[in-house]
Amino acid sequence: MNSTHDRQANLETADRLTREAALGGAELVLLPEKWSLLGRGADLESGAEALDGPALSWARETASELGIDLIAGSIVERIGDGRAGGRPLANTSVHFGPDGSVKAIYRKIHMFDVDVDGIEYRESEYEQAGSEIVTSRSAAGIELGLSICYDVRFPELYRILALRGARILLVPAAFTLATTRDHWETLLRARAIENQAFVVAANQIGRHAPEHRSGGRSLIVDPWGVVLAQAPDAVCQIQATVDLTLLERIRAELPALANRRPASYAWPTASH
Amino acid sequence: MNSTHDRQANLETADRLTREAALGGAELVLLPEKWSLLGRGADLESGAEALDGPALSWARETASELGIDLIAGSIVERIGDGRAGGRPLANTSVHFGPDGSVKAIYRKIHMFDVDVDGIEYRESEYEQAGSEIVTSRSAAGIELGLSICYDVRFPELYRILALRGARILLVPAAFTLATTRDHWETLLRARAIENQAFVVAANQIGRHAPEHRSGGRSLIVDPWGVVLAQAPDAVCQIQATVDLTLLERIRAELPALANRRPASYAWPTASH
Repeated sequence: MNSTHDRQANLETADRLTREAALGGAELVLLPEKWSLLGRGADLESGAEALDGPALSWARETASELGIDLIAGSIVERIGDGRAGGRPLANTSVHFGPDGSVKAIYRKIHMFDVDVDGIEYRESEYEQAGSEIVTSRSAAGIELGLSICYDVRFPELYRILALRGARILLVPAAFTLATTRDHWETLLRARAIENQAFVVAANQIGRHAPEHRSGGRSLIVDPWGVVLAQAPDAVCQIQATVDLTLLERIRAELPALANRRPASYAWPTASH
Repeated sequence: MNSTHDRQANLETADRLTREAALGGAELVLLPEKWSLLGRGADLESGAEALDGPALSWARETASELGIDLIAGSIVERIGDGRAGGRPLANTSVHFGPDGSVKAIYRKIHMFDVDVDGIEYRESEYEQAGSEIVTSRSAAGIELGLSICYDVRFPELYRILALRGARILLVPAAFTLATTRDHWETLLRARAIENQAFVVAANQIGRHAPEHRSGGRSLIVDPWGVVLAQAPDAVCQIQATVDLTLLERIRAELPALANRRPASYAWPTASH
């Protein structure tokens, strides 16, 4: 998606692409990060909504109507007024099941406080970081590992998701143009290879504000690191089939998860 | 290198390439995994040597003569007779300083017990796994993180090395042809990107025994994931300059190591 501050246009695009995916046979659909609203910090702050707001109400109804698992990428969630010391917003991903029920809520753990492409991002100035690692289960019984964008730079998170049983790792994102060029595919394929899991990554593409541009190239990667599908440079949906027998064969033949040596992983502090 | 069961030929090749590298200005040289002896398990068992054997004696003298840091990839070290229950061998990397002193000894933690390309590898049948994560310091004062081959599939190891201060991650290897094609560059670049460290990876190339073939493509990667040097498909040495100001700038602008959230990394067991 190329989400902007125009929430109505964003919802229409999400609706169109989700229906197109379901018509194409998709049983599980992932939207990108901040699919319902993307732009300057002030836009996000004024446009944030609760879990029962318009964006996730659409997602709930659409998952139910189409009978799909819908992981609504992430939205800017209003979680408070910020007066109690916490930030007023969170970067929140919600998994709705085919019955419209909430299967999981994940709030982004790693805040994007960086300077890239000459632009300062200070996500923690207006968003409260989550603290819980979250897995979920699809209607087909496949364990899902939830994450958002900058999280992909932290292999600890995906390792823990895999150890908790995740077989599909979900990465909705708004990766910048430069980091998409330099890091996107490499990190996503590494997460798939090292955890021997599918990786499904939906990226934003194009300008969201004059100085803010995402790199697209959404990917679906298999547990051997093979790219099964890649988005062209356009607002679109891509699909692939998740073959769990492939995953099980890879884990049996090259049992890297079983070959871990946790007793040797001497993390520097008690909280590692 | 294309090491075989011919130890004398292997030492001559290592000597020629190390001198060539030093003449080219190299201050730190990394040899590949099992550079002094590679072949069938029985060859390795009969040809294993102690830390004061011919292979590492050559390495010690050469480091001293050339005034370089020499990380002698790995050798098959004889550590016992196996009668006390432990395995008789280890896969051991030794770092010699320019004064010929031993700066660090690392024994491979992750045993290559896998089936790839239709070949069974059972490293743990004859090698005793190491248990200690090891960093070292070059003569130029740069912290080094030691690892060997299959270790590269375990992001935990490199994260801990980076948290201990490693700025160059060393990966001597004998990666198979198929896994070199599919995983080598992706995993090495990911380790560099996620840990914002240089990665120096020396791979074996060609046949070591009729059924055993390595994939070459030795790499030097910078902390942004850029490949600074890649070996052609030949026995050769490659070089690059390690620019620590680049590393420090990347870590300042995109402070992923500082943005970790260790309190949220709920590893499944007490020994994580």
